[in-house]
Amino acid sequence: MIKAIICGTIAIDSIETPNKAKKNLLGGSASYASLAASHFVPVGILSIVGKDFPLQYRRKLVAHKIDLEGLHLGEKTFCWHGKYTGNMSQAVTLKTELNALEEFEPIVPKSYRRGEYLFLANVDPVIQLKVIRQMIRPKFIVLDTMNYWIENHLKNLLKVIKEVDLMVLNDAEAKSITKCESLVAAGRKILSLGPDWAIIKKGEHGALLFSKKSHFSAPAYPIEVCLDPTGAGDSFGGGLIGYLAKIGSTREIDIRRGIIYGSVIASYCTEKMGIEKVENLSFKQIKERYEHFKKIREF
Amino acid sequence: MIKAIICGTIAIDSIETPNKAKKNLLGGSASYASLAASHFVPVGILSIVGKDFPLQYRRKLVAHKIDLEGLHLGEKTFCWHGKYTGNMSQAVTLKTELNALEEFEPIVPKSYRRGEYLFLANVDPVIQLKVIRQMIRPKFIVLDTMNYWIENHLKNLLKVIKEVDLMVLNDAEAKSITKCESLVAAGRKILSLGPDWAIIKKGEHGALLFSKKSHFSAPAYPIEVCLDPTGAGDSFGGGLIGYLAKIGSTREIDIRRGIIYGSVIASYCTEKMGIEKVENLSFKQIKERYEHFKKIREF
Repeated sequence: MIKAIICGTIAIDSIETPNKAKKNLLGGSASYASLAASHFVPVGILSIVGKDFPLQYRRKLVAHKIDLEGLHLGEKTFCWHGKYTGNMSQAVTLKTELNALEEFEPIVPKSYRRGEYLFLANVDPVIQLKVIRQMIRPKFIVLDTMNYWIENHLKNLLKVIKEVDLMVLNDAEAKSITKCESLVAAGRKILSLGPDWAIIKKGEHGALLFSKKSHFSAPAYPIEVCLDPTGAGDSFGGGLIGYLAKIGSTREIDIRRGIIYGSVIASYCTEKMGIEKVENLSFKQIKERYEHFKKIREF
Repeated sequence: MIKAIICGTIAIDSIETPNKAKKNLLGGSASYASLAASHFVPVGILSIVGKDFPLQYRRKLVAHKIDLEGLHLGEKTFCWHGKYTGNMSQAVTLKTELNALEEFEPIVPKSYRRGEYLFLANVDPVIQLKVIRQMIRPKFIVLDTMNYWIENHLKNLLKVIKEVDLMVLNDAEAKSITKCESLVAAGRKILSLGPDWAIIKKGEHGALLFSKKSHFSAPAYPIEVCLDPTGAGDSFGGGLIGYLAKIGSTREIDIRRGIIYGSVIASYCTEKMGIEKVENLSFKQIKERYEHFKKIREF
């Protein structure tokens, strides 16, 4: 039975890093997030691909118990070509072809509508809102976004933020949307926009969780060499929603643990190009690194 | 009985921040570090002041059980005038008058020579080395420095680094001295220069501890408004050495706890101008925030 619903993009990625370049990889926020969540629970995906979408990629998703009833079909799959330089903290987009994404009118299948855990991964906020409207209010909605929507479609984004339980942003996005220089001030300001919870992802500095009453600081896994950061944030969100859906709880301690599980999968994600590492993880590996996270912060 | 020896500068500071400006404050790395350490153990100070050094400041130190036998006397006290703007992440030095510091030839008093815990706070590495040479090898030496010595006196600094047990740097300094972009790589590289331990302070992102075998990530205390960051790093180092001296151990778990105690005092330090908050802390306040640090990272 589907436990987590994930809405986002599915893309064909071409990625260049200082060490390696690869073409025509399975990418997009929903791919990473679904694969990450699928380590915890069966997932239903809400996205769109084109007729050109390779069968082998479809099979990869199905092999991970990712339900494709919510996968819409358009003409051509969304393509992204990005490049990382220097310390790879940010991708430079070389080419984006929205293709099928432009015509994406999400219809939430009946079997998804009672989904209790919904992750709105990065995609147009108009689409995110349409999904919320079609669902019976999930028990917990997690929202991710990116700088593009903050800078160009803030009004729509704010409408979505108002409706969700938890918002995830990276540090640059958090500062941009709140105009706060301090991350603590930014975190608290996000809460004033509607959500009960805000997570600020800080890359090599870990992540912060804010609620009106509490504050949690998650360490980062010590990575010396990052091979490809693509999808790390999506894997984080997917791991978080997957864990919460698995244990069926949204107590603070569980959200904290979900953040660590998300961080575990995100840290693995950066070790290979594209989805390769996230897709091939064993639960033993996830558990091992979770235990390592405990040791990292112990005092 | 003196338990921790602290060598560094004593200064008369004038500080300007976006909110406030104050003149003729007691400052300098040894002042902050000694006051921080004095919350744990009796401290001996190795530094120099001039004849103009206010009696009230001398009394402040003595009132905190800081022994002044190692306080040398020159003509005029070192003066620093700094300004913080924007997010106050770095001070702009408006004026530095080295004065007595220029002629500082440290002579370690007999009563200090068997000191087991030595903190070499920020000062010329030539002075730091002279202090080490005069001591019976302490059980544990912690070294701090600043970008100026890394950029202009690296050769001397490297000689000191080789001789210490633990080196403390902030993130910018760690990247500068190691030429590594990744803090994890930087931390490991510092270990290759001699110390068994390296701490990288990351301000609002907490601190990292590295040894050849392990990795610790300390959270930061969530501060929304920093009134004055002056001396926070020195207070961190002082709190660390004070705690270690108090419990008389340098096991990893104790260094980890010392980092939290250092972070506690550093976080308090930023809440008022100059030494005001560090000097007036109660141990109850320190313990309270230490317990809060536990909650921040719990999962």
